Amino acid sequence: MAVHRFVPTSYSNVIGTLPPVLSVASGDTIITTTLDAAGADHEGVTRAPRGNPMTGPFFVEGAEPGDALIVTIDRMTPTRATGWTYSPVSPQVVDPRTVADLPKSERFEWAIDAAAGTVKLIGVSERISGWSFPLTPMIGCFGVAPERGQAISTATSGSYGGNMDYRRFGPGASIAFPVAAPGGLFFLGDGHACQGDGEIVGTGIETSFEIEFTLHLRKNAPGRWPRCETATDIITLASGRPLDQPLQFATTEMLRWIVEDLGVDAAEASHLLGQAVRYDVANVFNPAYCVACRLEKNAITQGMSLFGS
Amino acid sequence: MAVHRFVPTSYSNVIGTLPPVLSVASGDTIITTTLDAAGADHEGVTRAPRGNPMTGPFFVEGAEPGDALIVTIDRMTPTRATGWTYSPVSPQVVDPRTVADLPKSERFEWAIDAAAGTVKLIGVSERISGWSFPLTPMIGCFGVAPERGQAISTATSGSYGGNMDYRRFGPGASIAFPVAAPGGLFFLGDGHACQGDGEIVGTGIETSFEIEFTLHLRKNAPGRWPRCETATDIITLASGRPLDQPLQFATTEMLRWIVEDLGVDAAEASHLLGQAVRYDVANVFNPAYCVACRLEKNAITQGMSLFGS
Amino acid sequence: MAVHRFVPTSYSNVIGTLPPVLSVASGDTIITTTLDAAGADHEGVTRAPRGNPMTGPFFVEGAEPGDALIVTIDRMTPTRATGWTYSPVSPQVVDPRTVADLPKSERFEWAIDAAAGTVKLIGVSERISGWSFPLTPMIGCFGVAPERGQAISTATSGSYGGNMDYRRFGPGASIAFPVAAPGGLFFLGDGHACQGDGEIVGTGIETSFEIEFTLHLRKNAPGRWPRCETATDIITLASGRPLDQPLQFATTEMLRWIVEDLGVDAAEASHLLGQAVRYDVANVFNPAYCVACRLEKNAITQGMSLFGS
Amino acid sequence: MAVHRFVPTSYSNVIGTLPPVLSVASGDTIITTTLDAAGADHEGVTRAPRGNPMTGPFFVEGAEPGDALIVTIDRMTPTRATGWTYSPVSPQVVDPRTVADLPKSERFEWAIDAAAGTVKLIGVSERISGWSFPLTPMIGCFGVAPERGQAISTATSGSYGGNMDYRRFGPGASIAFPVAAPGGLFFLGDGHACQGDGEIVGTGIETSFEIEFTLHLRKNAPGRWPRCETATDIITLASGRPLDQPLQFATTEMLRWIVEDLGVDAAEASHLLGQAVRYDVANVFNPAYCVACRLEKNAITQGMSLFGS
Repeated sequence: MAVHRFVPTSYSNVIGTLPPVLSVASGDTIITTTLDAAGADHEGVTRAPRGNPMTGPFFVEGAEPGDALIVTIDRMTPTRATGWTYSPVSPQVVDPRTVADLPKSERFEWAIDAAAGTVKLIGVSERISGWSFPLTPMIGCFGVAPERGQAISTATSGSYGGNMDYRRFGPGASIAFPVAAPGGLFFLGDGHACQGDGEIVGTGIETSFEIEFTLHLRKNAPGRWPRCETATDIITLASGRPLDQPLQFATTEMLRWIVEDLGVDAAEASHLLGQAVRYDVANVFNPAYCVACRLEKNAITQGMSLFGS
Repeated sequence: MAVHRFVPTSYSNVIGTLPPVLSVASGDTIITTTLDAAGADHEGVTRAPRGNPMTGPFFVEGAEPGDALIVTIDRMTPTRATGWTYSPVSPQVVDPRTVADLPKSERFEWAIDAAAGTVKLIGVSERISGWSFPLTPMIGCFGVAPERGQAISTATSGSYGGNMDYRRFGPGASIAFPVAAPGGLFFLGDGHACQGDGEIVGTGIETSFEIEFTLHLRKNAPGRWPRCETATDIITLASGRPLDQPLQFATTEMLRWIVEDLGVDAAEASHLLGQAVRYDVANVFNPAYCVACRLEKNAITQGMSLFGS
Repeated sequence: MAVHRFVPTSYSNVIGTLPPVLSVASGDTIITTTLDAAGADHEGVTRAPRGNPMTGPFFVEGAEPGDALIVTIDRMTPTRATGWTYSPVSPQVVDPRTVADLPKSERFEWAIDAAAGTVKLIGVSERISGWSFPLTPMIGCFGVAPERGQAISTATSGSYGGNMDYRRFGPGASIAFPVAAPGGLFFLGDGHACQGDGEIVGTGIETSFEIEFTLHLRKNAPGRWPRCETATDIITLASGRPLDQPLQFATTEMLRWIVEDLGVDAAEASHLLGQAVRYDVANVFNPAYCVACRLEKNAITQGMSLFGS
Repeated sequence: MAVHRFVPTSYSNVIGTLPPVLSVASGDTIITTTLDAAGADHEGVTRAPRGNPMTGPFFVEGAEPGDALIVTIDRMTPTRATGWTYSPVSPQVVDPRTVADLPKSERFEWAIDAAAGTVKLIGVSERISGWSFPLTPMIGCFGVAPERGQAISTATSGSYGGNMDYRRFGPGASIAFPVAAPGGLFFLGDGHACQGDGEIVGTGIETSFEIEFTLHLRKNAPGRWPRCETATDIITLASGRPLDQPLQFATTEMLRWIVEDLGVDAAEASHLLGQAVRYDVANVFNPAYCVACRLEKNAITQGMSLFGS
C-alpha cells in the first residue's frame, strides 16, 4: 500500500504497449500530474503535443490479460486557476440543416475557483459573465494498453478505456479496465474542471491537475468493457457509433454483471433493467461515442461489486 | 377554467385529424380515463385493439397551426391494482452477437400498491419476488394531430408527440406541442406505472389510469418539437433514428429556446449547454427513438418558460 | 385486361385510405399522368401543393390485406421538355464539419431531350453547360395505403412504399407491395427523368409524366416489404434510419424470398447472399432512407419470381 | 522500375510504424505472397495468428506525410485450390428481431477453379452443390501506417486503409493512400477469391495469394481518404459507423476531388454527383463499415486522375 509521487517528464498521445514509467504493486497509490488537452502544464507551458497527452504508463505487478485493473480516483486538484473551452456545439449534435448557422470556434478562458467550487466564464459579454457552474472534476481520457500490441490515438476510445469523456469519472469513482497487456499499463490525462453530458462543445473545461489515484488488481475478472462503481451508482460504459452501439454494448455488459453478481438469470436481469436502468450520454463528440448504462444503488443492487466478493 | 369529466366510449390507434370527442377552452381541465397499451380498462376488459389506443381527440377552441397546445399533467391515478410487462430487453439494445441468447417473451404481472408507492413483481422466482420499484406514473403516448392531414400509428412519434415513452412526462410536467390542425386535437393513452430509461423491455409497467390534465393554448408559439417544463427541469424532446438524430433535433430545439427566452446569441447558448446539458434516452425501442435534452433549473435558466412571458 | 385512360382532377399529399379515383381488375392497365414534385403539370401550371402530390388511389378489385399488389411500369413519357433540381448535396451526406461550406440552394432547369435520350443543364456556367446525363425515367413515390387506416406524408416511406426514390423503379420493373387495405389503393407520382444513387441533392430531375402501368393481384403473397423484379435483377427494398436499418430489413426480406422460392434453408441462403449480394442506396435524403438488396439474375436465382409459381 | 520478389517470413496483425521488410523506389513492382485471413499459407499451414496477418511493411523511398502512396494491383493468383467461408449472414445485417433464427457458424470449403474462373461450394447439400460464383480476386486489407505512431488492428480500417473489404479493390485497380509516416509503410493481406457487397457473412472466400503490385509515390497529394481509379470508375472510400458516416466522408472526398481536378466549384460538383453518383457498400461487418462513392468514367470525368496531371 505504498504511496508514489511521480513527476512525469514525457507524455504519450497514444495508449499502447509502451515502456512503463513506474512499476507499482496492487493497492498502491500514485500522486502525479496531468497536462491539459492541449499539452499545457500548471504554468500554461506546453509540454507535449495537443490531443490529450497522457501521463504514464504505470505497470502493475502481476497484471495479466484476463485480469481487471481497477483505478480509484481519490482526488483531483486543479493546478491552474483557469481552464479553457474552444468550440460552440458540434456540427454532430445539431440538426444538419442548421450547421451552417453555428458560430465560429474561439478560445474562451474560465476562472476556476476551487474555494468556491465554481468555474466562471472570463471576459465575455456582460449578459453572460455571471454564468457559473459547479467545479466537478473528472478524467476525460484514461485506460490500459489495448490488445494485440495496438497503440491507439488518445482522440478515441474502446474496451480498453481511452477518451471516454464521462462526467461521472471523477473523485470517488472506481473504474475497472480489462487488462490486455502484461502489467496493464495504465495511462491518464485530459482532466476537466466541469463537463456537460456528451461533451457537445468538444471540450470540458480543460485544465491541468494533480491527481491521486489507487490501483487494484483483480485477478480473472469478468468485464469486457469499463465497469464503474461510485458512492451512488453501478455503471458500465462502452464505445462506438452511432449512439445505439455503445448503448448496446454497455447494456449487454450490465446484463452480464447482474447475472454474475446477483446470481439471477437473463429474464430476471431484464426485469431489473427494464424498470431501473438509466443511460448517460458520456460523449457524442469523439470518433467513438460513449454511453453509460447505470443503476442507482438500492436494495436490489447490493450484491453487485466492482471488486468481487 | 371549467373542469370536464369525460368518459370515453371509443378509442383510436392513430393520431390524426379525427372528429373531436369534446371541445374545451384554453385553461380547462379534463378528467378522463385511459386504457392500457393492450386496450384493457380498469377491469381488465379489452375495449380497443392493442397498440396504445388513445382517448380523444380533444378540440381546444381557437387553436390554429403556429400555436402551441400545452398540457399540464395534474394527476395520474392507476385504476387497476396490477400492471404488466411482456418482453426481456429488446434485441435492439444489446450487442447483436448476443441476441440469440435473449430469453423468450412472456407476460408478467406486477402488483401496484398506490398506498406504498411501489410496483412489485408477482409470481416470479423466490429470488426476485422481493424486487420492487417506486410507483412513478407517466404517459407513454400523447400529442396532437400532425400536419397535412396525416393519421399516424400510435406505435411511433414525431414533432406532434406520439409514442415518446419518456419517464419524466408524469404528474407535474407541462408539455407543449406545436399545433398543426385546427383545435389542436389532443390524444392521450398508454400510461405506465413505472418505466426505466429507454423503455428497453418494450413496455413500462402497463396499466389503465384516471388522468387529470389541463390544456393551455399559447398563440404564435415558437416550438418545433415538444417542449417541457417540470418543477426542476427545462426539457426538449425529439424523435428519430439512430439515437444521434433525436439528440440532434432536441439539442437544436433547446438552443432555439435558450436564444429566444434568454436573449443570448448562439455562441452564448453553446457555453450554457456545453457545461450544463443533460440527455435522457426516453425510448430506444419504438420505430422512432426519443431523446430529451434537459437543463436543471438554476439561476441561468430562470428566464426560460414554457408559457412565454 | 382492360386499358384505362385516367385523367386526374385531384391529388393527395398523403398515402392512405382515401376514396378511390378508379376501380380496376387485376391485370388491367392504366394510362395516366403525374405532376412533378412541386405540383406542376405538363404546362408548368401548379395543380397541387408541393411535396410529391399523388395521382390515385386506384382500387383493385379483390385485393385484401395479406395479398400483394404488383405494379408493372410499362412506360414513362415526360410531358414537359424541362425538369428541375434545386439543392446542392444535402448536409446529411457530407462530413458534418464541411456543411457550412455547402453552396446555397438554387433552382436549375434541365432540358429533357427524349429523342436523344439525355438531360442537360440549362443556363449554367460555360464550363459545365455541356454536361449531360442519360434520360432514365423512374417513379420516386408510389405505393399502397398503409395498415391501420394511417395516412402518411408523401415525404417519407415504409413497408407500403411511398417516397422511396430508387432509380431502378423505372420502365420494365415490376414492384410488389403488401396490401393493407381493401382494394390496395395504389398511388403514384414524383417522376424523375434521371437520378443518382441516394437522391443526395434532394431531387432527381423533377418533371411531369404520362405513365402506363399494369396492376396484378397476387393472393396470399408473402412479402413484408416492396419486392421487385426487372429484366436483370431480383430486388427487395426497405426503409428506415440510419442506412444500416433499411439494409437490415431488405436483407431479411431477401433471405425470406430465397428460402421461399428456392426451397433452401437459411444457411444455404446465406451462402448465396454472401458472395452475390449487391446493395443500392436508393435514397439517403428523405426522412426514411431506403436501401435495396439486389441479386443479378443468374442460374441460381432462376427459381425466384415476383409473381409466384 | 525494379521488380522485387519478396518472400515474407513474418507477419503483423496491426498496421503501424513497424520496421520495414523491404525498401523500394517509386515505380517499383513487388511480387509477394499473402496468407489467408486465418493465417494459413498456400499449403494450408498456419504461419501467423488469425485476423488478417499482413505481409510488409514496404518502405517507399522519399515518401513523407502529405504525399500519397499509390498501389496498382497488377495481378492476384490464388496459391491454393480452396478457400473458406465461416459464418451465415451477420446479426448486424438482418432485422434484429430475426437474429435468433440465424443458423450456426460452420466452416465451409470452396473449390477455386482458376482455369474456369469460378469458385464452387464443396460438400454441401445436393441442392446447392451446383452453386458457383465467378472468381473475382480482391485484397481485403491493405494500407499504410496511420498517423501519430499508431498501430491499429487489421480487424478495422480508417483513412490509412486497413480492413476495407471492398470487392472492386482487385487487379487493375490503383488505390492512393495518404502517407502519414516516413516511407509510407505499406502492408497487404486478407485476399478474397470472391466477395459480395458488404462482406455480410463476415468473410469473402478466404485464401492465400501471390500478388504483384506496383507502388507509385505522388508528392504533396490532396487526398484525405483512399482514392481509387479502375478501368471504368473513379472511386473514393471511407470508414465509420453507421453506414451514413462513411458515405458522408466518401462523398466529401469525392466532392474535393471533382473540384480539384475538374476546376469546377462546389455547386457544379453537386450537379455532377446528384445525377451520376453510385454508392457501393464495401463492408457492413467490420468494426468500421466502409462505403465507396463512385463515378463511372465518362466524358465529364475525363479530367480526373489519381496520379495527378
